Amino acid sequence: MLVSDLETPAVVVDLDVMERNLSRMADYCRSKNLVLRPHTKSHKIPELAKRQIAHGARGITVAKIGEAEVMLEAGITDILIAYPVFGTGKAEKLAELATRAHISVALDSLEVAQAISNEANRKNARVGVLAEVDVGFRRCGLANEDELLILAQKAAELPGLDFKGLMFFPGHFQVAEKERAELRTGVNDLLSRTQKKFERAGIPLHTVSGGSTPTALEGHLFSGVNEIRPGMYIFNDRNMVGIGIARVEDCALSVIATVVSTSVSGRAIVDSGSKTLSSDRHLAGDGRGFGIVKGDPNAELEHLSEEHGHMNVNFSARKYRVGDRLTIIPNHVCNTVNMHNRIYGVRGEQVETVWEVAGRGKVQ
Amino acid sequence: MLVSDLETPAVVVDLDVMERNLSRMADYCRSKNLVLRPHTKSHKIPELAKRQIAHGARGITVAKIGEAEVMLEAGITDILIAYPVFGTGKAEKLAELATRAHISVALDSLEVAQAISNEANRKNARVGVLAEVDVGFRRCGLANEDELLILAQKAAELPGLDFKGLMFFPGHFQVAEKERAELRTGVNDLLSRTQKKFERAGIPLHTVSGGSTPTALEGHLFSGVNEIRPGMYIFNDRNMVGIGIARVEDCALSVIATVVSTSVSGRAIVDSGSKTLSSDRHLAGDGRGFGIVKGDPNAELEHLSEEHGHMNVNFSARKYRVGDRLTIIPNHVCNTVNMHNRIYGVRGEQVETVWEVAGRGKVQ
Repeated sequence: MLVSDLETPAVVVDLDVMERNLSRMADYCRSKNLVLRPHTKSHKIPELAKRQIAHGARGITVAKIGEAEVMLEAGITDILIAYPVFGTGKAEKLAELATRAHISVALDSLEVAQAISNEANRKNARVGVLAEVDVGFRRCGLANEDELLILAQKAAELPGLDFKGLMFFPGHFQVAEKERAELRTGVNDLLSRTQKKFERAGIPLHTVSGGSTPTALEGHLFSGVNEIRPGMYIFNDRNMVGIGIARVEDCALSVIATVVSTSVSGRAIVDSGSKTLSSDRHLAGDGRGFGIVKGDPNAELEHLSEEHGHMNVNFSARKYRVGDRLTIIPNHVCNTVNMHNRIYGVRGEQVETVWEVAGRGKVQ
Repeated sequence: MLVSDLETPAVVVDLDVMERNLSRMADYCRSKNLVLRPHTKSHKIPELAKRQIAHGARGITVAKIGEAEVMLEAGITDILIAYPVFGTGKAEKLAELATRAHISVALDSLEVAQAISNEANRKNARVGVLAEVDVGFRRCGLANEDELLILAQKAAELPGLDFKGLMFFPGHFQVAEKERAELRTGVNDLLSRTQKKFERAGIPLHTVSGGSTPTALEGHLFSGVNEIRPGMYIFNDRNMVGIGIARVEDCALSVIATVVSTSVSGRAIVDSGSKTLSSDRHLAGDGRGFGIVKGDPNAELEHLSEEHGHMNVNFSARKYRVGDRLTIIPNHVCNTVNMHNRIYGVRGEQVETVWEVAGRGKVQ
């Protein structure tokens, strides 16, 4: 099957670009002696998780119990759930998974630790625990070395839990390189203080797990970090291009769309709206637009209805016609993939693979 | 099963409120002699489409061929695809569906009409056609009575097509009542001119199909409109409350979320982010926030990560704790439902029904 045979909208992944992205990150981690634990929320596809492991990833990261389950069923046995899992059914399921695989959880409260411990203990399972550090994103995590030590000590005493170390998510680092360097100074102060505190208390930190795609290739510049969890790097997206982390030619994933209406002057309407691309905003520049229209820098994907992409083509030299097919790089690839039941792996014009997004919709 | 037994995040629908919403719209349509053809994109659930028909809807509206297929399989046989369907595979499928049910399509170009005609003709199917009018939203549609007449005349001559009338989507009417009334004046001018033009040309307009939930109860105020296609009214959402179309107590759908972290001061983090609620913005007021936190008007759901809702609780009198369960009314219900594989129908604390969102992911 050819790409041109696919009905639109269709999410396609350029396999050559994806493989290059995977190799680059794996090579970097090897060169800096960092454990690579990709966050699979960006694709939710077991085959791709396995490809990441084949490239040298130690294990994977997921956000949800349901995602962990899908990955475990596919044979992946080293999984970090980078989320403070809470709820009786979830804790039960977590403990059950931990009887079959190496499962760790990042958490920032004794309430979550206690609930997981209860179920792990009942099932004779061991669940690894990372204490989450708030490095300034102000989402989850403790921002104080004393509180982190107390949490670690108390969690370590709970049956069924193995304290493993620290984890942080630098979500506010989705900015340009200069700003990231400035932010890093403060983060390193906190990380160093915390590591000294744990050392003095005699609690080993086997793992200090850092970010995410924007900081991935700077992982070695964070104090004590020995693991990174990038997600988007497998595909990249407009946001990553916007902050200078990737070039357009590093974007492996795109949406093939068809122009369905040109009746309104200055507009070309494509069959890809917020239920195809997601309504995630652009996080760089002036924040405008919902994707890069490949081959036409003067066309702006200005607005999304659920099933319509509204392109402003007033400044385009191209004359759009109904039936024209376009290639769009979305703002935020994780939320784009999450809209779809299947995506296509392509090489040149050939469709090589169809992947089911098996972890999609596992909201719990 | 009780609502409190549901693992979170969970999308729940208050059946009493939903039934009231359905009755109110059906009663209005009966009283004004308007055909009700609800847009099922808001729920994508055949059982709910059937409930709408039981309340008096003539048929339904969908956005995609895949959605039409799901609804037809469930026994619904009068379906408007309010979208300019384009693509060979889609046209084939459309013609096939039209051999089994009454299928109409809204379109605004001869290219789309011709492609549908080709396939309908090959399969001996009849497809109804509505010419789309651009009433000012500047998405799809023709904004000129002469062009509309030419399109209708040409479409009517194509084999396999039955020209039925006009359709418009007043997407820009998602504003307060006073502004809607002002906008309506211009729309009525265009509609009246167009209807006169068609009358003089001897082309009957069996159907003049108007909006959408914000204009639904004003349907009778649009010139010549004899059908309306509201979608969100079944559930309502924060946007509908924002423009004064619904009260909070008319919102049937909400997301049950759990607080998973309170470690960062001034924050309570819930397990519902953009992959649960969607990242659709609030379209009223200052545009801030991603939902109404029921019972706490001073808590602001300020920011969404994929799986985290960041609540600013600096101004809340309530002390949030890990494990607290909250009820959130999302900004835009259509895109919230679209995130989920199943949603729950509840009455009081009882979970009465589980619905599969069977039309979800049918992006083509």
